[in-house]
Amino acid sequence: MISVVLLGTGNVATHLYNAFLNVDAIVVTQISSRALDEVPDADITIIAVADDAIAEVSSKIKNGFVVHTSGSVDLNNLQNATRKGVFYMLQTFSKDKKVDFHEIPFCLEAEHTNDYKLLEILANSIGKKIYSISSEQRKTLHVAAVFVNNFSNHMYKIGSDICIKNKVPFDILKPLILETALKIKELSPEKAQTGPAVREDKKTIKNHIKLLDTSQQQIYKILTKSIQNGN
Amino acid sequence: MISVVLLGTGNVATHLYNAFLNVDAIVVTQISSRALDEVPDADITIIAVADDAIAEVSSKIKNGFVVHTSGSVDLNNLQNATRKGVFYMLQTFSKDKKVDFHEIPFCLEAEHTNDYKLLEILANSIGKKIYSISSEQRKTLHVAAVFVNNFSNHMYKIGSDICIKNKVPFDILKPLILETALKIKELSPEKAQTGPAVREDKKTIKNHIKLLDTSQQQIYKILTKSIQNGN
Repeated sequence: MISVVLLGTGNVATHLYNAFLNVDAIVVTQISSRALDEVPDADITIIAVADDAIAEVSSKIKNGFVVHTSGSVDLNNLQNATRKGVFYMLQTFSKDKKVDFHEIPFCLEAEHTNDYKLLEILANSIGKKIYSISSEQRKTLHVAAVFVNNFSNHMYKIGSDICIKNKVPFDILKPLILETALKIKELSPEKAQTGPAVREDKKTIKNHIKLLDTSQQQIYKILTKSIQNGN
Repeated sequence: MISVVLLGTGNVATHLYNAFLNVDAIVVTQISSRALDEVPDADITIIAVADDAIAEVSSKIKNGFVVHTSGSVDLNNLQNATRKGVFYMLQTFSKDKKVDFHEIPFCLEAEHTNDYKLLEILANSIGKKIYSISSEQRKTLHVAAVFVNNFSNHMYKIGSDICIKNKVPFDILKPLILETALKIKELSPEKAQTGPAVREDKKTIKNHIKLLDTSQQQIYKILTKSIQNGN
């Protein structure tokens, strides 16, 4: 039996809490980070709060093994006097959308081998894609994730803005969005690339730019250049 | 029975040819655009060649009804003396990847109602998502498609470059890529957005920028600003 305390009430904490509730071998308690004087003892204390609050919250925890769930915060940012680790799930969590933990990569780190093994058991109880990732590697993954998630999503947002402005249903683009993501399973992004930039189709590029507003034009030009330069 | 001539030997022409071959009510012939003096008569002649070649190829076709398959070329760019139309499939086609035509939006246009109905029958024989889209609307869709497809894919490319440079498996990011695309089925891109830009998390943004090369930094900054400005 593993006892887990989850600190935080955001998306990550809540999805994790619900997942652990379904595992017989885990006893889980969820606590608001504002109730730090009421934290019960546990084998693993998971701090799932905003990045900026991790240092302060961890400094008040007396439990033996404390981990955070952040992609961009170093293990040593934890300020508990006891053992430290990281339990980072590389996925986007929305409040209203169900999470399939079997599809989520767990990026684990701990100072001690036994603690790492404990995190591995915990991750395996709800998921199956487990990776040992150092703080340095995690930082890298986190910035790469901003590109493939936040910035891709922003490309969808601009596509949607263009459709709304020109009274075309955005739904027409949804199969393309999905296909673009699915392609990456089989082809490298470099090989998967199509379109006017990689074709160096100057006429189409010129016509496209005319249809955009100033901010969209700037993004179109920079990304076209970046595709053509291969960087 | 509908007779179709397909001009061109690229991805679009070949995928369409294979799809039509499976339909009993369609007789299809595929011809290289370099063999224009051998084009047989047909109910619908589909020009699936590079955008820049559409005007010249169409000028040499004597058949009664000629359409092109381009997202960015106006119907009136066709130079045949007979009836004109557009048979545009808004999807990304790769040589080696099977296409599910049931998932592909067909954007149809014709000068005459009867021709439009014929294109509709043709599209319905292999697909089911049919839209009547004018040349103006199609231009809009095409530039929106560059954002959601080419530019999203370029975000994957940059994510992959970052992983390769820092010796982290890009595979860890693939579930996130797929989830980002799937989210759009249920949430608007605006509501789906997460990450340091929309959170105005200046510290993380600063740390991320340090990890990137010059070209990546420029893209990171511009897209972060665009997300924060809501444009």
